Amino acid sequence: MRAALSPVELVHLLGEVGAYGVNFHDNDLVPIDATAAERDQIVRDFKAALAATGLVVPMATTNLFGDPAFKDGAFTSNDPQVRAYALQKTMHAIDLGVECGASIYVFWGGREGAESDAAKDPVEGLKRFREALNFLCAYVKDQGYTLKFALEPKPNEPRGDIYLATVGHALALINTLDHAEMVGLNPEVAHETMAGLNFLHGVAQAWDAGKLFHIDLNDQAPGRYDQDFRFGAVNPKNAFFLVKFLEDVGYDGSRHFDAHAYRTEDYEGVKDFARGCMRTYLILKEKAQRWNADGEIQALLAEIKAGDQAPIVYSAGAASELKAHSFDRLALGARGLPYERLDQLTVEVLLGVR
Amino acid sequence: MRAALSPVELVHLLGEVGAYGVNFHDNDLVPIDATAAERDQIVRDFKAALAATGLVVPMATTNLFGDPAFKDGAFTSNDPQVRAYALQKTMHAIDLGVECGASIYVFWGGREGAESDAAKDPVEGLKRFREALNFLCAYVKDQGYTLKFALEPKPNEPRGDIYLATVGHALALINTLDHAEMVGLNPEVAHETMAGLNFLHGVAQAWDAGKLFHIDLNDQAPGRYDQDFRFGAVNPKNAFFLVKFLEDVGYDGSRHFDAHAYRTEDYEGVKDFARGCMRTYLILKEKAQRWNADGEIQALLAEIKAGDQAPIVYSAGAASELKAHSFDRLALGARGLPYERLDQLTVEVLLGVR
Amino acid sequence: MRAALSPVELVHLLGEVGAYGVNFHDNDLVPIDATAAERDQIVRDFKAALAATGLVVPMATTNLFGDPAFKDGAFTSNDPQVRAYALQKTMHAIDLGVECGASIYVFWGGREGAESDAAKDPVEGLKRFREALNFLCAYVKDQGYTLKFALEPKPNEPRGDIYLATVGHALALINTLDHAEMVGLNPEVAHETMAGLNFLHGVAQAWDAGKLFHIDLNDQAPGRYDQDFRFGAVNPKNAFFLVKFLEDVGYDGSRHFDAHAYRTEDYEGVKDFARGCMRTYLILKEKAQRWNADGEIQALLAEIKAGDQAPIVYSAGAASELKAHSFDRLALGARGLPYERLDQLTVEVLLGVR
Amino acid sequence: MRAALSPVELVHLLGEVGAYGVNFHDNDLVPIDATAAERDQIVRDFKAALAATGLVVPMATTNLFGDPAFKDGAFTSNDPQVRAYALQKTMHAIDLGVECGASIYVFWGGREGAESDAAKDPVEGLKRFREALNFLCAYVKDQGYTLKFALEPKPNEPRGDIYLATVGHALALINTLDHAEMVGLNPEVAHETMAGLNFLHGVAQAWDAGKLFHIDLNDQAPGRYDQDFRFGAVNPKNAFFLVKFLEDVGYDGSRHFDAHAYRTEDYEGVKDFARGCMRTYLILKEKAQRWNADGEIQALLAEIKAGDQAPIVYSAGAASELKAHSFDRLALGARGLPYERLDQLTVEVLLGVR
Repeated sequence: MRAALSPVELVHLLGEVGAYGVNFHDNDLVPIDATAAERDQIVRDFKAALAATGLVVPMATTNLFGDPAFKDGAFTSNDPQVRAYALQKTMHAIDLGVECGASIYVFWGGREGAESDAAKDPVEGLKRFREALNFLCAYVKDQGYTLKFALEPKPNEPRGDIYLATVGHALALINTLDHAEMVGLNPEVAHETMAGLNFLHGVAQAWDAGKLFHIDLNDQAPGRYDQDFRFGAVNPKNAFFLVKFLEDVGYDGSRHFDAHAYRTEDYEGVKDFARGCMRTYLILKEKAQRWNADGEIQALLAEIKAGDQAPIVYSAGAASELKAHSFDRLALGARGLPYERLDQLTVEVLLGVR
Repeated sequence: MRAALSPVELVHLLGEVGAYGVNFHDNDLVPIDATAAERDQIVRDFKAALAATGLVVPMATTNLFGDPAFKDGAFTSNDPQVRAYALQKTMHAIDLGVECGASIYVFWGGREGAESDAAKDPVEGLKRFREALNFLCAYVKDQGYTLKFALEPKPNEPRGDIYLATVGHALALINTLDHAEMVGLNPEVAHETMAGLNFLHGVAQAWDAGKLFHIDLNDQAPGRYDQDFRFGAVNPKNAFFLVKFLEDVGYDGSRHFDAHAYRTEDYEGVKDFARGCMRTYLILKEKAQRWNADGEIQALLAEIKAGDQAPIVYSAGAASELKAHSFDRLALGARGLPYERLDQLTVEVLLGVR
Repeated sequence: MRAALSPVELVHLLGEVGAYGVNFHDNDLVPIDATAAERDQIVRDFKAALAATGLVVPMATTNLFGDPAFKDGAFTSNDPQVRAYALQKTMHAIDLGVECGASIYVFWGGREGAESDAAKDPVEGLKRFREALNFLCAYVKDQGYTLKFALEPKPNEPRGDIYLATVGHALALINTLDHAEMVGLNPEVAHETMAGLNFLHGVAQAWDAGKLFHIDLNDQAPGRYDQDFRFGAVNPKNAFFLVKFLEDVGYDGSRHFDAHAYRTEDYEGVKDFARGCMRTYLILKEKAQRWNADGEIQALLAEIKAGDQAPIVYSAGAASELKAHSFDRLALGARGLPYERLDQLTVEVLLGVR
Repeated sequence: MRAALSPVELVHLLGEVGAYGVNFHDNDLVPIDATAAERDQIVRDFKAALAATGLVVPMATTNLFGDPAFKDGAFTSNDPQVRAYALQKTMHAIDLGVECGASIYVFWGGREGAESDAAKDPVEGLKRFREALNFLCAYVKDQGYTLKFALEPKPNEPRGDIYLATVGHALALINTLDHAEMVGLNPEVAHETMAGLNFLHGVAQAWDAGKLFHIDLNDQAPGRYDQDFRFGAVNPKNAFFLVKFLEDVGYDGSRHFDAHAYRTEDYEGVKDFARGCMRTYLILKEKAQRWNADGEIQALLAEIKAGDQAPIVYSAGAASELKAHSFDRLALGARGLPYERLDQLTVEVLLGVR
């Protein structure tokens, strides 16, 4: 609904609103049919815009979904020629990303899936995905790049079902890779929320596994098309818990606002949108600090955790002793837990009334 | 809506409809407040019913959700006394399951979650789950049991959000356990489908990881309360692909129909329901064989896979060569893939008209 | 998970937290198998508790879902005896409600639906629902009661699919009743949100039709089991727009908090929960006033509505003129609409930072 | 992913696969910026193609969503110029549709909605929608056209929330129109299913109200983006109940397959897809006849309906008598209803094994 901006114009728009960096798909920057000379000129112009604005490129990725060649997938296509072409395109795009300074390389397999499970074997799909990632990890290491990979899961759209539907499925695949240590996650609010999952829980599991390499912040109503709304625009309470988590654990990667302004906006509105994403994050960060400093909230947390202790480490003796222990089941069940009070105070911090 | 049956009555009902086995939660068999003598009598009667009917107990599990003590979780409760009690209860229930012949022990963490992320730290939740599983794995090994564990994921209900929401999240957790080799999955149709995920894809990933230890078959509409309908009752096409997968890969574990008859039924209706689960599985198994033997379907599959080849193994030379290769992108994009035809023929096999 | 309170205890609990009124199902107050004498004693005690606390009974309703007789529906049961019994039970419950002062009578057809569309004809279901409502409207008029009916839609749970799934479906049915003027809606946040619908839009349509007779306030995540959480606990932004609407249009019916405290709570926690519902409503009401008084927001609204005018009334001449008019389509499309800015300011009012 | 076909080419493709008719949006046939002369030539060519193939045009509609002018809605846009332009465009498109023989005119308000309820008042939205429909009804009557209108509801996409989310909401709006008798529904499988609603129940309510003017047949998984898959491709059991309903009640309107072939297909695949839609409908129609003729199924239905009788008509005497009647509640609750058996037999008819 809006005229497209060139990469250079976009860098200037982002610079104007105070963004830290800019990420891109290869073909956002260099058209798929550009000559080598055109590519080099585009990269020179782009780097000049980066230098002029002070923006950096924390992350890059490959467009493996827009071209009709990828209509049945890239790494998981049934056509071995397409799979080979996807590897080639990604190697070139990795080179481009590294040249522009990216340290994280994202894989979103938008076409890696199926509409009919008659047409594609899901075990074969996983196997092909694994082989492609193994190949590209080896390529990166061989080139001496320090790049890390971040998988971005999504349950569906544009495919009926996409492989690696959630943070969990992607984490599980990583454990089967040759170079699992260089592959992590790029969870996106909208993608987990489409499936109605608690995004924070997925992020927490990625963090627990040491795999939170990058994060895509936006917003989304559950059970719908991929909306990519302004961060915090749909559910500010969920956004609060997410910001609080990232700040509390000391996540030091990018906060990437992978969202789109409403179609109703002109470019002034796009700037409003971009500023809104950043401003809401900072407001929620301040609220997280306030929550952590709130005496009543902290007292409730202390009450909840009262009696907490180190986990019981297994030994034959500990097990025997525990089996013989007499628990007062009814007393355990009768204990009231002040979670309504705690959640209400959280809402009041969020709404700015305490 | 129906009067409850005793365990012995239930065994006889299952025997009458031709079931292979019966699974149970500890308190389905032995009330939570039974004395040791009562427990022993109940087990004797139950074993006698098994012997009389020829049924076996392939799997057992613990009820860690029904008692008020577990209202905020069992292994992940904020109360260390509750966590200890949950370990104790599970050790006793494991002993009971082994005594009855179970070789798979299922963990469904129905209360392991939260309504408010203010009240429970999701990283702490994962840590506690892991510690409990590590303790119990050690217990089983120490007892010399040959039991294997199977985690059963679920996204929500009865908690607002349950930890380990999907097959993917559970697979990822297993990789962080001390004895990952003895822990696998018990995916359930209804649980993945509640989140609108493609159940087959989750099962395929569990299979690919060597972790499909058990499976719970039933049916469910996406985005709703946990329905546990008769296998194939909601979506026979999804059920077809699932049965075809289990048969094609040679899954040799239990096909556990973890479903409930409609509330409208009396016990004759419960038998109709149980027979229906088994009958639909067998009908779909026959259809899977027919699909595999269908000449036109096989010709389409051969066409789809034409040109398939071994994956490109990474070497510096292979990468260079691939980067320099000239692909005919437009030709790759123009190739038609006969997936509509293939899916339509699948529907026609399913509907019994070919 | 908590011991149940008696009706009298509940009235005192509600009085203590400052509630305005109490609503009930017939069998919340009078057990289904009470004698006439028991019923009268219970009603006397209940009225005494009302008098002591100053609470009123704005609304009453019938439990047509708890008893096994209603396992296949009440008004829409396939069994004519059950349909007759449901009419009888509702007449008695209407008498009881009127005796206790209720002016609104709610119909939530929890069992009016099906798991299999083989078992029940949905046209027949609608017809039976209509006949029951026609009968009961006639009964109320004949008794000289001033009672109005309010239908409460819900898409599913405990039935696989419930008839009259949404506010829209219920509004449409009302138009087919003999006494449509005395029948309106009781929309519930959780029920529309389960289906992922925008609750405000449903409420607005009920209001537009003059049918917003009552409202059930709570909270719910989309695409899940019926959660009935504390008002504003899931999504405070949605709650804000709802409160703003009710206050802006001057809705003067009950704000009924039809929610449940988390299972983790004891009765102190239940009071925290009840106070939280009311407090959040009042906080949001104050924010709605602030939004209406915010100069920048009002300036944006004025800009958005600039050029607004009366609708074009049809006449042959107006149509001809309009057909011949030359519109500048490109200019219309190029106009930027500052909705991102407006929504961001709304978020900032909500978060208390302006 | 496929090169577009011209209207004439499309008519020939549809003729080749044996379709009965073709429907169109105004700009599918005539580009939005065509001159009058171009328009007339296009219409002549199109009519020639119709004549050559024997296809008819049962239905036409307006594209009020593709042009940036409609980015914030057409009839409900905040901009009165846009609303006027939408009326103009629709009058011209109605003329075009009537010229091509259409007797049904569909309104799908794809952009009639909002992403933020701060930006648009939902009561105002309904009011504007009503005014536009009133204007256009008057136009049609004034022109002497016999055209009937059919509203096509949808919950979301491309807007965050679309007004008139479901069949129910649209039916309710119709009751508020000046010429309600000429306005009905065009329910679409995918649109109701996106919201997880039972499509059959919506269709049944439209039928009950005499408002099933047209129907859009395709398929869709709940809780996802608008998929528009081949009829029966997602859930053949739901499709069966729908076909059975349309055939049983004698629906005599169009069966419009408003679906899209997978992106993987070339034009041979598009023909496979189109043939598959029609073939699956006919297969299910045959199965509906078989179900109706199945002795065991009919015996179960007779058992279910045993004792059925005319509804109790209200009179003071009938009410008194009913209030005094003694029901055997426990016996009513204990009656078993053979719905599992009935649904299993339905599955077996569907799967072609009886």
